[in-house]
Amino acid sequence: MNQTVEPKILKGFRDSLPETETVRKQIIRKLEDTFTRFGFDPVDTPVLEYASVLLGKGSGETDKQIYRFRDNGDRDVAMRFDLTVPFARFTAAHRNEIPMPFRRYHIAKVWRGENTQKGRYREFVQCDFDIVGSDSVLNDLDILLLMRESFRVMGIEKITFHLSHRGIFNTFLEKEGIGNLSGDILRTVDKLGKIGEDEVGRLLTELTDAEKAEKVLSYIKTEETNEKTLEKLIRLCGGETEETKRLAFLLRKLDGAEDGARFILNPSITRGLDYYTGIVYETFLDDLPGIGSVCSGGRYDNLTSIYARERLPGVGSSIGLDRLMAALEELNMIPKRKTGTAALICFQDTGYLDSYLALTRDFRKAGIACELYPEAKKLPKQFSFAESKGIPFAVICGEEEFRNGTVTVKNLNRRKNYTGLSFGEAVNLIQQDEK
Amino acid sequence: MNQTVEPKILKGFRDSLPETETVRKQIIRKLEDTFTRFGFDPVDTPVLEYASVLLGKGSGETDKQIYRFRDNGDRDVAMRFDLTVPFARFTAAHRNEIPMPFRRYHIAKVWRGENTQKGRYREFVQCDFDIVGSDSVLNDLDILLLMRESFRVMGIEKITFHLSHRGIFNTFLEKEGIGNLSGDILRTVDKLGKIGEDEVGRLLTELTDAEKAEKVLSYIKTEETNEKTLEKLIRLCGGETEETKRLAFLLRKLDGAEDGARFILNPSITRGLDYYTGIVYETFLDDLPGIGSVCSGGRYDNLTSIYARERLPGVGSSIGLDRLMAALEELNMIPKRKTGTAALICFQDTGYLDSYLALTRDFRKAGIACELYPEAKKLPKQFSFAESKGIPFAVICGEEEFRNGTVTVKNLNRRKNYTGLSFGEAVNLIQQDEK
Repeated sequence: MNQTVEPKILKGFRDSLPETETVRKQIIRKLEDTFTRFGFDPVDTPVLEYASVLLGKGSGETDKQIYRFRDNGDRDVAMRFDLTVPFARFTAAHRNEIPMPFRRYHIAKVWRGENTQKGRYREFVQCDFDIVGSDSVLNDLDILLLMRESFRVMGIEKITFHLSHRGIFNTFLEKEGIGNLSGDILRTVDKLGKIGEDEVGRLLTELTDAEKAEKVLSYIKTEETNEKTLEKLIRLCGGETEETKRLAFLLRKLDGAEDGARFILNPSITRGLDYYTGIVYETFLDDLPGIGSVCSGGRYDNLTSIYARERLPGVGSSIGLDRLMAALEELNMIPKRKTGTAALICFQDTGYLDSYLALTRDFRKAGIACELYPEAKKLPKQFSFAESKGIPFAVICGEEEFRNGTVTVKNLNRRKNYTGLSFGEAVNLIQQDEK
Repeated sequence: MNQTVEPKILKGFRDSLPETETVRKQIIRKLEDTFTRFGFDPVDTPVLEYASVLLGKGSGETDKQIYRFRDNGDRDVAMRFDLTVPFARFTAAHRNEIPMPFRRYHIAKVWRGENTQKGRYREFVQCDFDIVGSDSVLNDLDILLLMRESFRVMGIEKITFHLSHRGIFNTFLEKEGIGNLSGDILRTVDKLGKIGEDEVGRLLTELTDAEKAEKVLSYIKTEETNEKTLEKLIRLCGGETEETKRLAFLLRKLDGAEDGARFILNPSITRGLDYYTGIVYETFLDDLPGIGSVCSGGRYDNLTSIYARERLPGVGSSIGLDRLMAALEELNMIPKRKTGTAALICFQDTGYLDSYLALTRDFRKAGIACELYPEAKKLPKQFSFAESKGIPFAVICGEEEFRNGTVTVKNLNRRKNYTGLSFGEAVNLIQQDEK
């Protein structure tokens, strides 16, 4: 007999079983419908691209996180590690076919060879939505409204959006004479959640001096209300600017939220990535903040700077679907349903095969997801198959039912039989439970 | 100024613009709903796997079609080239969590470094559906019914399913004493559509002799009716067998098709792949047969033979979505719609910003996909933006409308204005057109 190959999977990769994949598809549909309602259209790009296109010119060194290799034509290629860079390449390539401003969403897998120790995965799904080709603050607003609506349709109301503004932060740093250290300071402040205020203060002191470090710590503190935080920022920047006015406008318009979602002006939010220039944001679940931001993004000055001379400002956001699903599971917010199949049509008597086939066909036509057990076996065996699959109903028809034109339905969870049903009644009974 | 990077794409890869991606998503949803109705559950597997797992033990030589490389951990990895091999690995790995028979579908991208000359792509989407863990002919039937239903929900009724049986073909070859040449003969017959009967005859003569070649050519001919073809197969096999009985059963049950789809017993269908052992099938669009099979598959003896000792027979099929979409486009069956957005809310007067925001919110709540133009500009500019995006309606509200509580809607295709509408009337007008 042949030796078998072990069906093992790469570290940091996962299979998605029906239980998980069904939920993932439901969530993705809700997001797609919401993005569409907000005027966003879907696009897709290749998983593989030229490494030089994904990494830019100065990509000589090997980034350990990137899946990069030479293809059979000896091209230097890489798998996409986010959806933003491909979107920039896409927009530059199709600039003449795309009317601006352009609202696009893209839900797809990305790959990063990250350290897998902390429950991070090397293959994960991102949901990105951006509006490019316009500087208008109304687009900032619409992205934030869409973020709130996206979580609402997923059933998540207890959520806090932490909002900040990179441009205002930089104005403040310039005023303090430490604008040249902006990148280092932003990256240090970004660690606040992880390492705490004392350690951030120590690192900032190293970068600047104790007095400046104190001022930065004061800047990044969230006050009791958004108004107070905003007042402080304006004061520390030396007065109102176009950017503080934009931020004030956004906070005013977002304040009218009728649900439990909150927008908080939190100046310690910086986002590590360099390309943000305006608002930046992160999103935390009120019941599970420790899992990290489940939706982040911001406004950038120029999406396509690597590929084109035309300046294309934009604003966008990204939902980390895998992290979110892990959180929902931890919060018991994922419906425990192992299958999308609602009914097993039991097969008892080979003499009635045509009737079973017709019954299966008719249930499907009526919109009931069902399957016919493929062999005539004892009912308990068929029930236990349905139960192991998580199918909630069994349809039991034998000589009596076919003679009388009735249907017997068994609710397998409640272990209750409903006999003498008409076909329509059986459909209703099963559909009721589906809701 | 910095040199820019050319936003080029790899040969054989494509971007999907909103126009295409919207249609693809619609088709995929219809398929998902249909698969669910037939009792199939979704799964997903990693894009990257160990090369030894995807290619089996004897995978020393480099297959030119495979994207295979060493990852940063020096593992020999490859991108999946189909969905069948990962499904086999998945099933073996999760055998204890999966009740049998298992109905799964998987819609995902696969990669092959194929010659791109003939309009073939190196990245494409497959839609696979299989039932494993059962030998029952009812599963063969359900897969074929699902194939028909899948094309019906996509609006394709003029379609022909070509059906054959590998086991019966082999019985015939054994009887003729050329069973040992089965693989070569099947592969030769598989070329019939491409190279014609004469050339197949010549190649078969080379493999065997003129008399045997003639007999094989006679076997693979499709007669006027399925009954006659079946009778011939039975005769050439020396009488009925379990397999001819199964095939006869299937043809009888499929005959009752109430729509335009046809099932034809075509013994020249062999499928190149070695693992099929029972029925095999290919599917051709009646109006565009030249594009090739858009849905193929068959019954196999043992899905997981590479990975496990347990024998798991199954039957499955795969829709080539990209080829199908190319065909639908050629047949003008793809709706010409560049965006999913139904309405542009025009922005005329900054003094009414809050009213425009409220209008946008209300339309979205009513299920109308819409966006607010992000700046107050002249109407013709906003109309031409909507037209270039393919948005069918513009909502025009100025001082008069806000004072009177009415809405003006412009149908941009018909260049017709509807004034004095209530909000509900405006919603209805736009929704009517959406249908």
